[in-house]
Amino acid sequence: MLNKKFTLAGRPIGRPISDDDFDYKEEELRNINDRELLLENMVIEFQPAQKGWMENISNYVAPLEIGDVMRCSGIARVLDSKSKKFKKGDIVSGQTCWQTHPIMNEDDIELIEDTDMPTAYLGALGGTGLTAYFGVTKISKPNPGDTVIVTGAAGGVGSLAGQIFKIAGCNVYGIAGGKEKCEMLINDFGFDGAIDYKSENLNESLGKFCPNGADIVYDNVGGRILNDCLLHLALNARIAICGIISRHKTDNMNFGPENYSNLIFKRATMQGFLMLDYVSETVVARKKMKKWIEDGKLICKEDLREGFENAPDTLKGLFDGKNKGKQLLKIAD
Amino acid sequence: MLNKKFTLAGRPIGRPISDDDFDYKEEELRNINDRELLLENMVIEFQPAQKGWMENISNYVAPLEIGDVMRCSGIARVLDSKSKKFKKGDIVSGQTCWQTHPIMNEDDIELIEDTDMPTAYLGALGGTGLTAYFGVTKISKPNPGDTVIVTGAAGGVGSLAGQIFKIAGCNVYGIAGGKEKCEMLINDFGFDGAIDYKSENLNESLGKFCPNGADIVYDNVGGRILNDCLLHLALNARIAICGIISRHKTDNMNFGPENYSNLIFKRATMQGFLMLDYVSETVVARKKMKKWIEDGKLICKEDLREGFENAPDTLKGLFDGKNKGKQLLKIAD
Repeated sequence: MLNKKFTLAGRPIGRPISDDDFDYKEEELRNINDRELLLENMVIEFQPAQKGWMENISNYVAPLEIGDVMRCSGIARVLDSKSKKFKKGDIVSGQTCWQTHPIMNEDDIELIEDTDMPTAYLGALGGTGLTAYFGVTKISKPNPGDTVIVTGAAGGVGSLAGQIFKIAGCNVYGIAGGKEKCEMLINDFGFDGAIDYKSENLNESLGKFCPNGADIVYDNVGGRILNDCLLHLALNARIAICGIISRHKTDNMNFGPENYSNLIFKRATMQGFLMLDYVSETVVARKKMKKWIEDGKLICKEDLREGFENAPDTLKGLFDGKNKGKQLLKIAD
Repeated sequence: MLNKKFTLAGRPIGRPISDDDFDYKEEELRNINDRELLLENMVIEFQPAQKGWMENISNYVAPLEIGDVMRCSGIARVLDSKSKKFKKGDIVSGQTCWQTHPIMNEDDIELIEDTDMPTAYLGALGGTGLTAYFGVTKISKPNPGDTVIVTGAAGGVGSLAGQIFKIAGCNVYGIAGGKEKCEMLINDFGFDGAIDYKSENLNESLGKFCPNGADIVYDNVGGRILNDCLLHLALNARIAICGIISRHKTDNMNFGPENYSNLIFKRATMQGFLMLDYVSETVVARKKMKKWIEDGKLICKEDLREGFENAPDTLKGLFDGKNKGKQLLKIAD
């Protein structure tokens, strides 16, 4: 049997991701060893952090080397097992990477018992959801009645963060690109308002929604959008720096938020974070998130594309704002 | 008798301060009323915040209007008193502003009992010292052994902040412009190292002094210097944004620190503050600072110029980095 895979061929530093950054390869599958499993990758997930892994800037996770299979999380079916922990047919999650048939060690995967919502383990119950949860609870520290701005609000993390802020009793305004996404924020996710940065004057709209400034800015975007948000801070505002997806765009690549000066006048705090720092609390966090999903308070919208060959294009689309909700790619049924 | 004064004539927004931003005026002194005092302004102080007052951006203190006497703190002698709290000859401190003979209400001034160090009330025991003290203790939160970078380290706030970090057991490296200032940091203020940003490659020198990154950056400067510091952060670093004196330079006026992205990778916190937020704690803070001065642990170096007519030029010099230590101007003996 053949394993199809994409490996890293280039580092997109200071430029957008291109097709040349990946090599497509096919290889004969080797036999599995003791404690290993052969998996069929079913669904893989996409997140902006993947560009950081490709660039390998600041070594914030184990480096991805040129020639390595492109890293991502996925949901897979066990085809063959030499592990006592898993049996053929089990559905598991783990870093299955951009390949059709991963061979993985039993220690590197997790059994999904809840097979009625397996893809949630790539969204609300995976890294995306945990990033949103810890960014809200640990960094943004919401109080009921706080005014919150979420940027990249229609994305995987943004849409979940906004909903968690709503659960915390905040007034939540989302920034997204396009009318359709903005309607989704209000109708699907229950945001109190939405700003289409593509058609509106962002500065004016922020002034309307936040006449007294925002207590919290949850930022996934950076660049000029963050810079405008920094002009609309309340005293003691918290700005959670979750990601900088705008770095993908050439004209934003080296854009620093000059309005950081407002941090002084508003005695505000801008803080970066990674969900990795809170691993000891993920069990509790997941339990809460799961309950919210079951109670219908938290919706994890999935943007599901199909076809393994579309992996590079799907990742590029993420940086062009094409996804509505969490970007997933179906590889096998 | 005549009161000579400088009033605000222009707002230096998006540009350096110019002579045209002030009007020089002379006026006959009126008689003082009950609870008022006639003062002779002896020494006035300069600080970067004055440009912010002139610009009146973000209204972070009571606005300074066009035509108002330029605001500053000063030390003055009581020439005439209709207050029961003060008598002729007393030395007082308060917002005496850019004028030779202020008339002030008894509630707006403070008696200086320590007449052996009156100018300390414009430096280490005034707003400058309190800004350094609270920026260190409330925002930077130093631990013994922490590596600290102070920018604008030869200035009023920077030199005091660096010394307080030393008292807190930190390893302190200062950035300043010119060899003379750098020698002062090490020889006078006891810094562990100094970087001359004018003659050295800042990025390289930071790498040498902070091979594992800085736990704290105490920033008075902003612009490209802050941006370089952001590349040298330790995990969980704190960046205290105290001021942005580089905004005075045209080429830095709208410079945003693009390396704020490192806040994510290093899980770092960038926080603005004003000492005004800690007024309830100033008595305790001053007591500590005074003890440190008496014990020789804290030196408040004063850069004393002379002549009231030089006030505008002295303020401009502050933004050109001409001062070594706290900038003061002597108006009367």
